[in-house]
Amino acid sequence: MPKLLHGGDYNPDQWLDRPDILAKDILLMKEASINSATLGVFAWAALEPQEGNYQLGWLEDIINNLWDNGISTILATPSGAKPNWLAEKYPEARRVNRNGQRELAGERHNHCFTSPVYREKVSAINEKLAERFGTHPAVTLWHISNEYGGECFCDLCKDEFRKWLKNKHKTIENLNKSWWTSFWSHTYNSFEQISPPVPYGEQGLHGLVLDWKRFVTDQTLDFCKHEIEAVRKYSEKPVTTNFMEFFGGLNYFKFKDTIDVVSWDSYPAWHTKNDVTTSMTTSMAHDLMRSIKKQPFLMIESTPSTTNWQPISKLKKPGVHMLSSLMALAHGSDSVMYFQWRKSRGASEKFHGAVVDHFGGSETRVFQDVAAVGKKLLEISDLAGAEINPDIAIIYDWENRWAIETLRGQRNVGANYLDSISDHYRALWEMGIPVDIADCECDFSGYKLVIAPMLYMLRAGIEEKLRDFVKNGGILVGTYMTGQVDENDLCFLGGFPACGLGEVFGLWAEEMDALKDDERNSFLYQGKERFSRDFAELVHPKGAEVLGTYTKDFYAGHPALLKNQFGKGTAYYLATRPEADFCQSFYKDLTAELGIKGFEVEPGVVKSRRGKFVFTLDFNRLSADVKEEEI
Amino acid sequence: MPKLLHGGDYNPDQWLDRPDILAKDILLMKEASINSATLGVFAWAALEPQEGNYQLGWLEDIINNLWDNGISTILATPSGAKPNWLAEKYPEARRVNRNGQRELAGERHNHCFTSPVYREKVSAINEKLAERFGTHPAVTLWHISNEYGGECFCDLCKDEFRKWLKNKHKTIENLNKSWWTSFWSHTYNSFEQISPPVPYGEQGLHGLVLDWKRFVTDQTLDFCKHEIEAVRKYSEKPVTTNFMEFFGGLNYFKFKDTIDVVSWDSYPAWHTKNDVTTSMTTSMAHDLMRSIKKQPFLMIESTPSTTNWQPISKLKKPGVHMLSSLMALAHGSDSVMYFQWRKSRGASEKFHGAVVDHFGGSETRVFQDVAAVGKKLLEISDLAGAEINPDIAIIYDWENRWAIETLRGQRNVGANYLDSISDHYRALWEMGIPVDIADCECDFSGYKLVIAPMLYMLRAGIEEKLRDFVKNGGILVGTYMTGQVDENDLCFLGGFPACGLGEVFGLWAEEMDALKDDERNSFLYQGKERFSRDFAELVHPKGAEVLGTYTKDFYAGHPALLKNQFGKGTAYYLATRPEADFCQSFYKDLTAELGIKGFEVEPGVVKSRRGKFVFTLDFNRLSADVKEEEI
Amino acid sequence: MPKLLHGGDYNPDQWLDRPDILAKDILLMKEASINSATLGVFAWAALEPQEGNYQLGWLEDIINNLWDNGISTILATPSGAKPNWLAEKYPEARRVNRNGQRELAGERHNHCFTSPVYREKVSAINEKLAERFGTHPAVTLWHISNEYGGECFCDLCKDEFRKWLKNKHKTIENLNKSWWTSFWSHTYNSFEQISPPVPYGEQGLHGLVLDWKRFVTDQTLDFCKHEIEAVRKYSEKPVTTNFMEFFGGLNYFKFKDTIDVVSWDSYPAWHTKNDVTTSMTTSMAHDLMRSIKKQPFLMIESTPSTTNWQPISKLKKPGVHMLSSLMALAHGSDSVMYFQWRKSRGASEKFHGAVVDHFGGSETRVFQDVAAVGKKLLEISDLAGAEINPDIAIIYDWENRWAIETLRGQRNVGANYLDSISDHYRALWEMGIPVDIADCECDFSGYKLVIAPMLYMLRAGIEEKLRDFVKNGGILVGTYMTGQVDENDLCFLGGFPACGLGEVFGLWAEEMDALKDDERNSFLYQGKERFSRDFAELVHPKGAEVLGTYTKDFYAGHPALLKNQFGKGTAYYLATRPEADFCQSFYKDLTAELGIKGFEVEPGVVKSRRGKFVFTLDFNRLSADVKEEEI
Repeated sequence: MPKLLHGGDYNPDQWLDRPDILAKDILLMKEASINSATLGVFAWAALEPQEGNYQLGWLEDIINNLWDNGISTILATPSGAKPNWLAEKYPEARRVNRNGQRELAGERHNHCFTSPVYREKVSAINEKLAERFGTHPAVTLWHISNEYGGECFCDLCKDEFRKWLKNKHKTIENLNKSWWTSFWSHTYNSFEQISPPVPYGEQGLHGLVLDWKRFVTDQTLDFCKHEIEAVRKYSEKPVTTNFMEFFGGLNYFKFKDTIDVVSWDSYPAWHTKNDVTTSMTTSMAHDLMRSIKKQPFLMIESTPSTTNWQPISKLKKPGVHMLSSLMALAHGSDSVMYFQWRKSRGASEKFHGAVVDHFGGSETRVFQDVAAVGKKLLEISDLAGAEINPDIAIIYDWENRWAIETLRGQRNVGANYLDSISDHYRALWEMGIPVDIADCECDFSGYKLVIAPMLYMLRAGIEEKLRDFVKNGGILVGTYMTGQVDENDLCFLGGFPACGLGEVFGLWAEEMDALKDDERNSFLYQGKERFSRDFAELVHPKGAEVLGTYTKDFYAGHPALLKNQFGKGTAYYLATRPEADFCQSFYKDLTAELGIKGFEVEPGVVKSRRGKFVFTLDFNRLSADVKEEEI
Repeated sequence: MPKLLHGGDYNPDQWLDRPDILAKDILLMKEASINSATLGVFAWAALEPQEGNYQLGWLEDIINNLWDNGISTILATPSGAKPNWLAEKYPEARRVNRNGQRELAGERHNHCFTSPVYREKVSAINEKLAERFGTHPAVTLWHISNEYGGECFCDLCKDEFRKWLKNKHKTIENLNKSWWTSFWSHTYNSFEQISPPVPYGEQGLHGLVLDWKRFVTDQTLDFCKHEIEAVRKYSEKPVTTNFMEFFGGLNYFKFKDTIDVVSWDSYPAWHTKNDVTTSMTTSMAHDLMRSIKKQPFLMIESTPSTTNWQPISKLKKPGVHMLSSLMALAHGSDSVMYFQWRKSRGASEKFHGAVVDHFGGSETRVFQDVAAVGKKLLEISDLAGAEINPDIAIIYDWENRWAIETLRGQRNVGANYLDSISDHYRALWEMGIPVDIADCECDFSGYKLVIAPMLYMLRAGIEEKLRDFVKNGGILVGTYMTGQVDENDLCFLGGFPACGLGEVFGLWAEEMDALKDDERNSFLYQGKERFSRDFAELVHPKGAEVLGTYTKDFYAGHPALLKNQFGKGTAYYLATRPEADFCQSFYKDLTAELGIKGFEVEPGVVKSRRGKFVFTLDFNRLSADVKEEEI
Repeated sequence: MPKLLHGGDYNPDQWLDRPDILAKDILLMKEASINSATLGVFAWAALEPQEGNYQLGWLEDIINNLWDNGISTILATPSGAKPNWLAEKYPEARRVNRNGQRELAGERHNHCFTSPVYREKVSAINEKLAERFGTHPAVTLWHISNEYGGECFCDLCKDEFRKWLKNKHKTIENLNKSWWTSFWSHTYNSFEQISPPVPYGEQGLHGLVLDWKRFVTDQTLDFCKHEIEAVRKYSEKPVTTNFMEFFGGLNYFKFKDTIDVVSWDSYPAWHTKNDVTTSMTTSMAHDLMRSIKKQPFLMIESTPSTTNWQPISKLKKPGVHMLSSLMALAHGSDSVMYFQWRKSRGASEKFHGAVVDHFGGSETRVFQDVAAVGKKLLEISDLAGAEINPDIAIIYDWENRWAIETLRGQRNVGANYLDSISDHYRALWEMGIPVDIADCECDFSGYKLVIAPMLYMLRAGIEEKLRDFVKNGGILVGTYMTGQVDENDLCFLGGFPACGLGEVFGLWAEEMDALKDDERNSFLYQGKERFSRDFAELVHPKGAEVLGTYTKDFYAGHPALLKNQFGKGTAYYLATRPEADFCQSFYKDLTAELGIKGFEVEPGVVKSRRGKFVFTLDFNRLSADVKEEEI
């Protein structure tokens, strides 16, 4: 893929009886400078209308016709939605929900990832597609399934989960220890006694909950590999699968060696809350996607207009489509792609925004906005492939998140792991300083600064890596709720942060207070009162320097912000969650100290660099621009 | 029924062991000028205590005794609640809920409308009642079942639904096209693959959802006809079935040719919010009931005091019982009837208001209020049968409502179809101008003005009717979200409002913005800023005159209110939902222009005419009056 | 038990592979003046790892070692959580929930109380424990199961419920009358037709709902007796079972003759709302526990720090642990005991507060607070066994509560029975005047003043007791919603308050208005406007003196507060629910008149006496003290 892609999901299978509309599509695509179409995402019923009766001819015609008109194809495997004949004949392919009910047919993303029959049928259709189109010059990329997600509680999945547990824990005695089953007499006599954690099952065993979530990722990934294997019989084209932002159900980092290109579906809720915040969190998601493989990614879906599944879906105001498109490119996307090219006439997404409206012509505001982005992409096609190599990593770790989100602790109303990460991200984003969003498995050694908010779980080896990072001169920023449990969610004994991180930070965190949603404490930093929320740890310095102390409650005067020299490096510790202004001051100083440069801008404007291009996002005027600029 | 009815639900079957109470009832009924009792609504277990063991003697005694005392009977078929022996012996009679569970016995309104056994047992008891009482001079009306409603998801209903679909769509190919099943690979190979839309089924197919709702109405109506058929074997007395306001589950207009008299149960939530608004929505429901058959109806249930099933049930303040009773009469009711005559001692409605309290005497405030209404009805008995023939119709269409309420669009928090209708209704109601609440099947030709808010769905023939109406000189008021889908919820192509309505309104609606709940735009009308909410369409005039333009957002200056001459008539288009004051001004002018007269009143007072009587509802003093007055 | 107990739940079974930690426990217990350990609460899997394979040796070692170090044992039967082998082999032991699903294994408190197999297995392990430890000098008390609660809807329970009903009602005719099944044709032909009230069953029959709740208490109590019977084969030590405050699921008063000592688990949500209110409701719960057997009780669980299951669990501020501990002692507790001694490493309560943290040492603030309480208990050990004998009883009746809470009436958003009780309690608590919290079965004759808020249900005999109490000179305070139904929730006929209580109060309550949550009426008392809420009855005096009249709404001028001489006594009637200041004034006067003395204190301080000790709780300074003081 040598250039920036402009295109999106195209569903000609809905319009095969309307050749006039298919012909109009080509003309309109050219008018909008479209160069890529994603085909077949939900086309199984059209490709195999009855079992074994494959109808690939219409697809070939479409691919060829697009290609003749200069438009390449991203070809999907159709496993995201199964045809009714399959659901009817093979009930085992249908998912069983948490309540033990087998799903009816219909909807989508509701198949069992374990089902041998489903795997067999998916392989068969994938092979057919790969055989026919796997070497077609128009096909640039395989789009494996769609938005993988969900869980199945059928007996096949239960058995597979038990095998997975046996493989991990080896003996039931090990598992009993790891999950602390002596609590509430939960001791298992055999793996066969274990069930997935459902509402009427044993929520209380956090080890079980975590292992189930790991299993779900592994089983989904295994299904994905199974799909790719079928494709690979006939095709060497690269593969992707489309991710969904910070989706809680899967650990996307685990997919990095299986897929060739990361892609994701980006649907910010424009104009429903503060647009700067919306852009910040969207940028953080872009950075996550870039960080998974440390290479450019594809924004493979986005809406040119509104969605139709959010509580309120507002129109993109003028300028916002260009702004959101350039934002993606600035953070590492090599594409601007849409769901969807043309609105369907019926069914649940008929009012989802599209390049071509039910109206059908190019006179619409939305079409013109899309065409303008198409032109802009042609102007900056050199951007394609440009990498971003930040000096800073913020740790976002899915397993840590799962542990925090299922934790029964002092703030069951919300521990706010993701929000706490974006506090730190925002300060750097506003300065236009690039950041990787990495998990604990990443190599810290290339970074100057590692920020690890709420690193509650320390899996084996992570403490050593962090320790070495600081010892060798790195700067580490940690917070409350660090180093409390191992990978099985077993608490470390002997004081937090555990496993030697206490030494790195130079402190012992004895207790943690929970603040009510409307409650604030504060501490002084650079002479200003900095408000904080959520949690307030009561910390004893063991060598660390106290930079700020609480001003309220019975722990007023106790340390809230500490700094510790460790080896050649420095570790900062925030015992509470500060509001935005603190991070702005703190990271301004720290990046200056480290010689990491951003951009000086007026408030409401964000500038950032990718390759030789500098992007300007102006939220005051809702406009955006990109220019080549010397470093 | 030659006079105004005063009476209500009477359950002597609960007191058969208390002859003293039954005797007291007669005395008290006379004291309250009661002339009609509704008997047997939930008496199945008393009428047929074991299968085939009919005990109708007690009922005969009651009917005769009432009749001897000048009180006629409305006789109910008892199908609203089945006896336990039936539920136990014939499980198929019990409804299956959305989760696939067969309901236990108990409760009410929970039988399967398809079940052959249930139909057989209902026929049998209905026939027995008709045979015994069908020609009794005391019996004036049959009350078929009670508050029909609900859905059943059993296999019998599934099969019946598939037959219904086959009958409608003929081939599975037709159905696939109509429901746009190519989306998400939902293509059906046969009717047998289709299931009703349940939570774990395919909500996404709006065609399926709409057809299911149509089926539920048809199946319920078929059950109702089945009940009437049994009654008709022995009785020619008129039939009714009691409706529930704007109940979403059934299209009541479909019942108009099956029942002889429309009746409904009216339970406004007095004093829990603004009483004028409560009265306005209640009046709109009265008008709906009158419009179904274009003839007077019965308010067959209401409470003389409080309910016991609302979150908060307040006492009716002094004056309110007379006011609510006269309001019903003013809008076309030929009765004031109560649920219930006497409070039961036990079970779930024992604290529901009644004419006779647990106290048992006539000394109560409630009893005296009821007696005063009884006297008033005697004074104005000439009112009975007086028709109301408005010049104005507001279109309320159940199928359109279902489509809007299940729509996945830009305001999933609420498209507010019913509220939007009441915006228009209120302005006319405040002026005392009578209005029909009609659906799209009605004949528009007799009206001067047709108001059609949010006419999203255009079933076949409707566009032509509206077009002809305007062409021939009618005035049409339409709004945003008009003419977007056909009867299968398939979007029209080529621009909204579709199917030629764009020509009638003289415009093209390109896009629609959704406003957040607390968000307002506004437009100028007659020099005043008129605030608007919910939706704001971006409209291009194609011949229409612009009467008002938006003042805010990027579409400031774009048309918000337009007027178009079409043939001999005029079509107005509101691109957004205005607040109350606009409709007040707009309809004051428009009705003046059309020569439609209302009443000049002080704020908080509503006057209206029915026949030779003028009713005055005074919300400032919570009082009401009715007088004969020349037109 | 000759002294005040200091101790709590101890789970060495989680640490059997860590002898170093078990050894450290002994040292730390001594440091904290611990004298009692509760063992085996959830230890079934450790005591019987496979069916019939009993491993009691480790427990014996622990008991002996503790005893050697001066620490006695409270020994639990382990039925609160069943081992997995039992759940797997005997599915009938697992509870069936309201949706008809049989619970999976895991969690706790989810066994069927009826299951013969479960009862057999529980008997077996209880006998083993009793045989081995039933006469051990260290064992002071049996802790039967844990926090009994919950319902099971399995077929075994259904059958048992039907037997229970047959035993109570004798014939189905009686039951039909008592439950008023003629309503909605609910008449039963046989007991076999009756099912427990589940969501898709017949909620509407309040008689059924109430009998089910009574059955659940009886069946749970029967299970408890079954457990005790097994223990009694080998042991004569006293028994307790730990209660949970005002838990709605069980009528704790029914346990009074079965258990020897009342104990409860006290978990106030400190610092999440007003701490004085929190202390007041906690004190009321202590008083309830003391009142059940009219003797001292044990606070057998409490947290020394935070919980981890509340939405927000804040740290106890300095001083609060002493304050909450002394508060328990002041109201009749002979212990301060904790859940838990040492935090577990894993599973759902690992972050629940404990004496010993994951940290492991005694340096923590929490440990030091606990040690200070330990010392204080040694100083006041004479307190043990001291009784409290109030002149005042407030009636809190579980069956009355169930009836009010399942009532379908005028305030379905909340009738607020418990809050209404605490209104009265608070005024007396602030003055330090002791109060019994008794149910309707108690003997009123020893009291000077009986307060009976919302005594909606009058079971047989209760009216006579209250009548005699007043006639003989007692003072009775009643409120709105008094004397409306009998024990089957059948309304009394002839006017409320019924059954002669109208004569006692000298009035007839004709109607009752419901106030919206934000709505207030008011009445004058001692020249001050007293605001009131929830309900406002419209009352006609029949001999009573009117002390205050409503100031608002159409019933302004009607009586709100009345006083009636009856025999030698006086009955007060509050027709509405006043805010706090009224009760303060009213009870200040009334207690003065009755010669009942409390303490003069500054606002925010509460003093009270138990035996020769006077306790001072100072909420202004968050401190507490206890001193010997002459009466």
